[in-house]
Formats: sequence, C-alpha cells, structure tokens
Amino acid sequence: MGEKWVLMKTAQTPTNIAVIKYWGKRDETLILPVNDSISVTLDPAHLCTTTTVAVSPAFQQDRMWLNGKEISLSGGRYQNCLREIRTRAREVEDKERGIKIEKKDWEKLHLHIASYNNFPTAAGLASSAAGFACLVFALAKLMNVSEDESQLSAIARQGSGSACRSLFGGFVKWIMGKEDDGSDSLAVQLVDEKHWEDLFIIIAVVSSRQKETSSTSGMRESVETSSLLQHRAKEVVPKRTIKMEEAIQNRDFASFAKLACADSNQFHAVCLDTLPPIFYMNDTSHRQDNQLC
Amino acid sequence: MGEKWVLMKTAQTPTNIAVIKYWGKRDETLILPVNDSISVTLDPAHLCTTTTVAVSPAFQQDRMWLNGKEISLSGGRYQNCLREIRTRAREVEDKERGIKIEKKDWEKLHLHIASYNNFPTAAGLASSAAGFACLVFALAKLMNVSEDESQLSAIARQGSGSACRSLFGGFVKWIMGKEDDGSDSLAVQLVDEKHWEDLFIIIAVVSSRQKETSSTSGMRESVETSSLLQHRAKEVVPKRTIKMEEAIQNRDFASFAKLACADSNQFHAVCLDTLPPIFYMNDTSHRQDNQLC
Repeated sequence: MGEKWVLMKTAQTPTNIAVIKYWGKRDETLILPVNDSISVTLDPAHLCTTTTVAVSPAFQQDRMWLNGKEISLSGGRYQNCLREIRTRAREVEDKERGIKIEKKDWEKLHLHIASYNNFPTAAGLASSAAGFACLVFALAKLMNVSEDESQLSAIARQGSGSACRSLFGGFVKWIMGKEDDGSDSLAVQLVDEKHWEDLFIIIAVVSSRQKETSSTSGMRESVETSSLLQHRAKEVVPKRTIKMEEAIQNRDFASFAKLACADSNQFHAVCLDTLPPIFYMNDTSHRQDNQLC
Repeated sequence: MGEKWVLMKTAQTPTNIAVIKYWGKRDETLILPVNDSISVTLDPAHLCTTTTVAVSPAFQQDRMWLNGKEISLSGGRYQNCLREIRTRAREVEDKERGIKIEKKDWEKLHLHIASYNNFPTAAGLASSAAGFACLVFALAKLMNVSEDESQLSAIARQGSGSACRSLFGGFVKWIMGKEDDGSDSLAVQLVDEKHWEDLFIIIAVVSSRQKETSSTSGMRESVETSSLLQHRAKEVVPKRTIKMEEAIQNRDFASFAKLACADSNQFHAVCLDTLPPIFYMNDTSHRQDNQLC
C-alpha cells in the first residue's frame, strides 16, 4: 500500500424544514428529543451542503474546513459521528490504483473533510442538519459502510438532531424512540419526493444574520425553564403528528398548512416562554406569518 | 323638584398593569376569567381616566363621550354596568339646591357621561380597565351606592375584566371565583400603595398605535384555538400566583421581576400559539424584553 494516495468521496445533502418541530432534548449527549418531528426535505439543487471526505496515509490528523475555513473537530458531536462511522467501516479496494484499505486500517487512517453550504449558515435554515447528514453519508460511502439510511440517520442524529431527517427526500419523520441508548431514535421516510410534486416551498430569507441563540443552548434553556414545553411534547405534538401524517398522505394542503403554521407558532411560543425569552422571529417574519397562517 | 337641575360627580381612576396576566374568559357575558390575576395600580397622577357623570331630568337618553367624541352605550358591557349600578342606586338629596332623587327615580333618569384618558387608548395600556373602573366608581358616588370597592369591582368586571383591579391602589388580585353567576369573581387588595414605595414603574410606549387585535377577540380566539392556554390557566398560573403574592409581601424584587417577566412572556406565547397568531410585541419590545428578563 503506497503512502501518497488519496481516496475521496463527495456527497450533496439538502436541508430540511420541520413542519412538526423538534424543540427540546431528553438526552443532551445522545441527542434524543422530547417529541417526534416531521420535516420536508428541500430540493438539493437549492439549499444544500456539499461535502468531500478524503482519506490518505499522508494525513497526520482529522481536519475539517467549513466554507473554506478550518474548524475544530474536537467537539463531542463530531467525535461521536466519526467514531460511530469508523466502527462500521469495512474493507475498501481500488484495484485500478492498487489501493486496499483493510477494516482494521480505518482506526489509524486520518480524514480531511471539506464542506460548503450554498445558503446562510446558522441563520435558521438548518445548516447543521444538512451538514451532519452530508458528513455521515459521505463517510459511509468512503468507508463502504453497509447500514441503510435509517441506521445512518441514528448516527447523523448524534451530530445534530435534525440531521437525521436529511438522509431522505420527501417527507420524513424522526421517531423520538424510547430506548435510553437512542438505538430506536431515527428517521423514516413517510413519502418520497414524488408523492406531492405540486407542493412548492418558498424560502424567504428575512435576515441572514446568525441567530443570537443557538438551537442547542436555546432548547436546553427551554427544557429547563419553559412550563409549556412538556405539555406541548406530551399532549399536543402526538395528536398533531398523526394529523400531519394524514394531511401529507392525502395531499391535503389546507390541513397541512394549518398544522404547519400552528406548530411553528407553538415552537416560537415555547421559545418566548423560556427564561430569558428567545426570539427567532422579527417584525418582518411576523407580518409574513400573519398573512400565511 | 325643578326640571333644570344637573347633578354631577367626577372620579379619577388609574390604569393597572398585570404582573400575573388575565388572558381567557370562561364566560363571555359575565366576563369570568380562566385564571386569577394580579396587577399593580399605577399612580393616578400619571396614567388615568377622568370621568364625570351627570344626571338631569332634562336628559332624554343615556349618552357618553370618550375623549370628546360621542360613543354608543348600546353595547352589552355598558348596559350591564349601568343596569347593575342603577339597581343599587339609593336616595340622593341636595338640600341647598332643593334637589331630591328618590330610589325609584333612578330608573327613569338619564345620564350623561364624559370620560378622558390622559394616555393612548387601546394601545395595550389598559384604557378600558381604567375607563370602566372610573365609570362604575363615579356612578356609585353619584347614585349614593353603599357597596364597597370589592363589590363594585364585580360590576366593573362586567364592563372590562381588568377594570375590577383598578378600584384599589397598590397590588390587587382578581380572584377568578367558582360561581356560575360570577358573584365571587372580584378584586381584593393584596397590599396598599404604601407597602412598596421604592418600587417605581416605568411605562415605555414603543408604539401608540391601536392594537390590531382587541383583547376581547384575541382572548376568545386563544381560548378556542391555543392548545397551551388551558395548561397555563390550570397548571402554571395557580402556582405562580402564590409565588407572586409572596414576592410582593416580602418586597422581593428579584423574584417579583422574574415572575412578572415569565408571566408576561407566557401570555405573549399563548397569543403566538393562537390561530391565527396574535402579536402584541414588536422588535422594539423584544429588545427591551431581552434586556429586562
């Protein structure tokens, strides 16, 4: 096995927009949510992350660049994804180039990762969802991992909760699961992207500034201080999720829009009920919301 | 008894600001709330209503002017207040002027009412609270009504719910009551205005425009459509009210401010959870809220 080779894979993953919102974790490390959520995956031609992963015996350490700028991989979320994928890595052979990576080699080999978002990062457009889904998917391809999308979604979930929903097109449900180890907290496709082809999604960017409160710290504060969050998670979302699945199956736009608006507003309501309050909407989004809902 | 006389009384009543919010009625006609609320009454030297009520055998009908403009008294709320006060009217005598009104005369005599607010009307500053409290109080003086402030508060409540809290200074609790006829839904003074003299209230008017949604229709829509409102009323407010009473008794500003902010934000959260959503805050109020809470 020569020392100069580099093996690469590139993947492209769209972002997804929740129509039944994920807000609140019951386990911070494994990223297990307090309720099911449902999202629609956008067309990858529009909002997406493109990630190239490369492996080479010449690499001295795992490194990553986001939008051309190197970022640290030392955080638990990256480490969890890398570890989970490496555990499942299998033998890879490129006969033409005379490259062979044994299963056991993956532990010693280092990765270089380059990721680009073609839309504003951390501005409420689920950049981390697309990013982690793309990272996990690209690594799975590079490492010849045999797990299916749902199994990969449980890995992507450990990078960013909503990332698990970006591994499928169409409408996707993140089942919250019951197990303490998170093994049943994964995404399933409800219907594929062809099911509702005359549904168009318009993304209106009212501000491309980074959010003042990250989703991670925001939902932690909501879980700790909002007296409405648990009621929403336990009493409201389960019923709403059933209705939303029906609306999607029946392509019932009136019900779909009403449920999506109601749930989005309730998510923002829980944010407002947090101490200190979190605002993800401004006057412009309020005006849009008033016209739509 | 001559026909040319006019008897007049003038009252001045401050507005009140709820620190545990009233939002949602269980009876629309009697104006019975879904939860207790607590407010602080402002200094009448600042935000107040001044109302003069006059009676004369020369008046042909009940009439009212608000801020110099005649308004209709035909609505149920005015009619309920006028009827309840007239029922309790007693004999009035002005010996000097040779005027005597028997109890039975009040049914036939008509009233002229002139009311002024020295602050923006219907802009979220409880103008109807001050207005109805002042109307009921002025009429009670004119008609020599013997009921005490709490009993009068149950009448003012039928004009505008929060009006019942403006009949006392200091901190006031509106007890929601249990009876179907509303007889036990009235205000009591928790502490008077001298209890916490170093507490200053700053009213920052970020917009003096009229609200887009009136409180009446807003809370009706919230009761009908918000899945968080009943949880707030039944589970959150009762506990919070006890804590707020303690904070007021102990002049514990940190607890007071935290509870008031949390409750105000939860009220706005329920508004946002309403279909269609109701926004009473704009970007300016959000910025203030973020700094204060």
